[in-house]
Amino acid sequence: MSSKYPLLDQVNYPDDLKKIPKDRLPQFCDELRRYVIEVISQHPGHFAATLGVIELTVALHYVYNTPYDQIVWDVGHQAYAHKILTGRKNMFETLRNLHGLSPFPNRDESVYDAFTVGHASTSISSALGLAVAAEQLGHSDQHVIAVIGDGSMTGGMAFEALNNAGIQRSNLLVILNDNHIAIDQNRGALNDYLLDITTSRTYNRIKKEVWDTLGRFERLAPGARSFISKVESGIKQTVMKRSNLFEGMGFRYFGPIDGHDVVHLADILSEMRNIHGPKLLHVLTKKGKGYKFAEENQTEWHATSVAFDIKTGQKLSAPKPQGPKFQDVFGITVTELAEANPNIIGVTPAMPTGCSLNIMAEKFPDRVYDVGIAEEHAVTFSAGMAAQGLLPYCNIYSSFMQRAYDQIIHDVCLPRLHVVLCLDRAGLVGADGATHQGAFDISYLRHIPNLIVAAPMDEVELRNMLYTAQLAQSPFAIRYPRGNGHNADWQRPFEELEVGRGRMISDGSDVAILSIGTIGYEVSRALELLAVHDIHPAHYDMRFVKPLDEGLLHGVLLKYKRIVTVEDNALQGGFGSALLEFCADKGYYPKVKRLGIPDRFIEHGTPQDLYKLCGYDAEAIAKAVMEMIQ
Amino acid sequence: MSSKYPLLDQVNYPDDLKKIPKDRLPQFCDELRRYVIEVISQHPGHFAATLGVIELTVALHYVYNTPYDQIVWDVGHQAYAHKILTGRKNMFETLRNLHGLSPFPNRDESVYDAFTVGHASTSISSALGLAVAAEQLGHSDQHVIAVIGDGSMTGGMAFEALNNAGIQRSNLLVILNDNHIAIDQNRGALNDYLLDITTSRTYNRIKKEVWDTLGRFERLAPGARSFISKVESGIKQTVMKRSNLFEGMGFRYFGPIDGHDVVHLADILSEMRNIHGPKLLHVLTKKGKGYKFAEENQTEWHATSVAFDIKTGQKLSAPKPQGPKFQDVFGITVTELAEANPNIIGVTPAMPTGCSLNIMAEKFPDRVYDVGIAEEHAVTFSAGMAAQGLLPYCNIYSSFMQRAYDQIIHDVCLPRLHVVLCLDRAGLVGADGATHQGAFDISYLRHIPNLIVAAPMDEVELRNMLYTAQLAQSPFAIRYPRGNGHNADWQRPFEELEVGRGRMISDGSDVAILSIGTIGYEVSRALELLAVHDIHPAHYDMRFVKPLDEGLLHGVLLKYKRIVTVEDNALQGGFGSALLEFCADKGYYPKVKRLGIPDRFIEHGTPQDLYKLCGYDAEAIAKAVMEMIQ
Repeated sequence: MSSKYPLLDQVNYPDDLKKIPKDRLPQFCDELRRYVIEVISQHPGHFAATLGVIELTVALHYVYNTPYDQIVWDVGHQAYAHKILTGRKNMFETLRNLHGLSPFPNRDESVYDAFTVGHASTSISSALGLAVAAEQLGHSDQHVIAVIGDGSMTGGMAFEALNNAGIQRSNLLVILNDNHIAIDQNRGALNDYLLDITTSRTYNRIKKEVWDTLGRFERLAPGARSFISKVESGIKQTVMKRSNLFEGMGFRYFGPIDGHDVVHLADILSEMRNIHGPKLLHVLTKKGKGYKFAEENQTEWHATSVAFDIKTGQKLSAPKPQGPKFQDVFGITVTELAEANPNIIGVTPAMPTGCSLNIMAEKFPDRVYDVGIAEEHAVTFSAGMAAQGLLPYCNIYSSFMQRAYDQIIHDVCLPRLHVVLCLDRAGLVGADGATHQGAFDISYLRHIPNLIVAAPMDEVELRNMLYTAQLAQSPFAIRYPRGNGHNADWQRPFEELEVGRGRMISDGSDVAILSIGTIGYEVSRALELLAVHDIHPAHYDMRFVKPLDEGLLHGVLLKYKRIVTVEDNALQGGFGSALLEFCADKGYYPKVKRLGIPDRFIEHGTPQDLYKLCGYDAEAIAKAVMEMIQ
Repeated sequence: MSSKYPLLDQVNYPDDLKKIPKDRLPQFCDELRRYVIEVISQHPGHFAATLGVIELTVALHYVYNTPYDQIVWDVGHQAYAHKILTGRKNMFETLRNLHGLSPFPNRDESVYDAFTVGHASTSISSALGLAVAAEQLGHSDQHVIAVIGDGSMTGGMAFEALNNAGIQRSNLLVILNDNHIAIDQNRGALNDYLLDITTSRTYNRIKKEVWDTLGRFERLAPGARSFISKVESGIKQTVMKRSNLFEGMGFRYFGPIDGHDVVHLADILSEMRNIHGPKLLHVLTKKGKGYKFAEENQTEWHATSVAFDIKTGQKLSAPKPQGPKFQDVFGITVTELAEANPNIIGVTPAMPTGCSLNIMAEKFPDRVYDVGIAEEHAVTFSAGMAAQGLLPYCNIYSSFMQRAYDQIIHDVCLPRLHVVLCLDRAGLVGADGATHQGAFDISYLRHIPNLIVAAPMDEVELRNMLYTAQLAQSPFAIRYPRGNGHNADWQRPFEELEVGRGRMISDGSDVAILSIGTIGYEVSRALELLAVHDIHPAHYDMRFVKPLDEGLLHGVLLKYKRIVTVEDNALQGGFGSALLEFCADKGYYPKVKRLGIPDRFIEHGTPQDLYKLCGYDAEAIAKAVMEMIQ
């Protein structure tokens, strides 16, 4: 190791980093970048984003007095280098494993993680809170920095925070990490705007002069600030005719500057430390920087899911799954439906590749809208289209759909507009951990009037639910998990499902197991385990959480006095609770054992690890049945 | 009538309006304004906002071909004039009454209401959806207009929508109705920005010349558009040095113009109809325009709750309530707590008067943050402050807190930050109707890990819960209703409540009634009704939905086999469901009758009307008990 990473070997904390002479920082960055590539090539995780902020991360910890000064990383998937520099280098290989390092910054993991993150666009709000608190508490020397990508900047709450920060005079630095890409290509007027101020030729010429002058001026500390002001206003007055969205919001705007020149970055940050009030530094970076394959295909290398060969970029093949990704079932099916129904529109907030809506976009580029990271807008925009008679399929990950909860109620379900809400990555998602678990959607959708809530057990059901959703003339939500199913032969002719009808998977005796969604496969495995003991519970796949299949339930409750419910969702207010409500309302008094996600946040690990942890893998289901019949 | 409103009498629909000669529109506006004042003086409702857009409303319906062309009113409290001009004049006096006209635009009420509204900042999203759909469907002559206030413009989803609209080339007109006020004084950098472009003296001089020239030019139709372009870019190049946030977002920007010159407005709108693509017209209006008292005190006259004398502005006194407003209990108590605890901070998204946080702001102006209409930011900003050790009380109406659902999960409860979430206007709010009912908060909060969820039965409990919340070192939510309590003698010494402990209000036999929150008063009344029949159920005030008082429940369930639960919240996933979950988990099998809000959206009416409608007023509770013991 020591020969490969001579400088990095000496650094475990920012204090170590500060001992490195400034002119050797480029070498340090090179080592750090190689180390990230080496580890991730063996231990999959987010990849391209961290490579893009190596220099920025180093410059920040070099200049600022962390953890007293506080850095908030928006989303946090770009914070691996930050973790390595803040005491976690030796644990870095445990990243994303059960009980290992968290995939994102987490206050419980390190005092250097100023805020727990995972979802986009929160950093300016939380950093403003930190900065205002520093002011309230009299810590006038404490600096707070939010690092936010141009993708996250399109999220509404980032704008709410800018609007508020612009009138607070707190000591807040926002670093706009501008790489013109979110996970997919960044979309929206803001992106065009940033591209425009970045590429303006006049601007760039003057900018260079200004920064050169500033560079010379750094040696003469006393009048520096007023000089900066003068130069700044010079730019403003003469050059940037359509200056500047951020200035308009009350921020002092600096940049754009090269985000891969670590010495220059450190110099600029040192200067900016002395400027009070809200300020924004526009930094240009390249996602995937320094790893050729990632630079060339940033979306593919956003995150890796298998090990890869560093030299060739070749991914090591994972074991071939039995069935297709549920995402592709969605993408292929919705494309088929769109062929037959010209009213079908696809909507995604910045996740066309992740949710496989890119399949439809290839065939119908004019009928798929990527609205940027903007879940609230995505849902209400869909509602607007539905009000004119179009039929939008709006696909949002379950944990991000939490952002659009009010819009589902207020803009879709109250006016009963026919929008199909597709909740990808529902249930426990695995390695992305607590912020990304789709743990709550059954509970947060079930109480919304006028909404149909469905969850397929397999690929064929998902396909038929997507088909059925277009016929329902009602707000319609479908939740399905991340990852692969079990059924290679899924692309069968469409079949309309009756809304609110479940199905019996296998008949039995003594106990009935009612499951919702793909977790039904764990039930199937549990039945096999139980069969060995000659125990044969019945198994029903409910298909719909709302409306419930009352006919089926009456039949089940008349026959069985012992019920086990299984769901990949929080136990509070979930499917099991819906069953209990039905029993109370109709006068049934069975024993009910509810299996699902307990009342705590669930960390990262493989889904199978987590099912076990939460007590609803096949073994736990079998155990619950056996305990019930004792 | 006919002598007072000669022109208005002739108008029931926009087609009638179009027959009025343009030069008589000012008179028509005068009549319409007087009519609104007259009706609202007798039938309370939103007031000042509609007075501010009389001319704009008339000009829009005069110029555009509604309902084919579609107008989306943001929030919709300013749409009374719109209702009067679109077939609802004769029903206008039923506004906000049970089964009467809806307080906001509603698709179910009129084809002229292009979108159902009530919450802020949705209009650009939905209007973009309508406009994109018009394009998809080949309706190239269909216009879509969003009318949004400068207050609503600070909401994040408005920005998300601008960002997306700027790259769509759809035929969307956004009218920014700029009166520099939301309900309270508008706060934020955007407000400063708008004020700045509005008051710039050079700008105003040139603007006048430009619009005068435009006025002359209207007669020469052919080259009009290119001329407008030239003049526009002239302004851009020479005057607006920090031009223009909206141009930056890809919109063509026009204005600002006088929103009370109806003829000029109509002319400008006619011109703008011919300009394709996203465009924004900045209109300056005065909230309360034309009614002196409302102009002078816009916050007080935002909405009226009692009849008033038009001449004197004197409000007719309502019957004196027994107890204080819960809002004032909050405002006074949090101020007392802030006196003793310097870490306490108040946060409100644009509702300081509505939630009575203005009481604290008077005493501690530097410790109260009004962040603008920005619920998402309000919660995460609070979380940021809590991460530094401050103790924010963040007050948001229950139905608006739906906007911050993800932030509660992701930024407060996951990192277990000590933020006190105060959910004002929980339960059925009455006259504001379906969009404003706080119907879901118990259901959407109960499944969030690490969160304490409390609901006081009376003012003293609210006071003590606010006190207890600061001691709890945990995310803490308190829900309480709009309006007045019953207890004049509420301001007693603080008493710490044990978290997760309920109380017995009265002992009894046969049936136990478990209630949560102020609806417990209906239970008290029910007990009186039942006492007449010598029926004496026990009554427990649970105080906490989460954690449940397990000790109390074990006691109750060992003693009673018949339970009635009462809550001012949706039955799905609410408090009653929490009880059913407890019973299932612990092996109790009582008869349970759950009373609460049924699975549909509840319209407007008095709270008492609505309790009856939903089956949980005193009579319905008594009936449920009697049916249970039969």
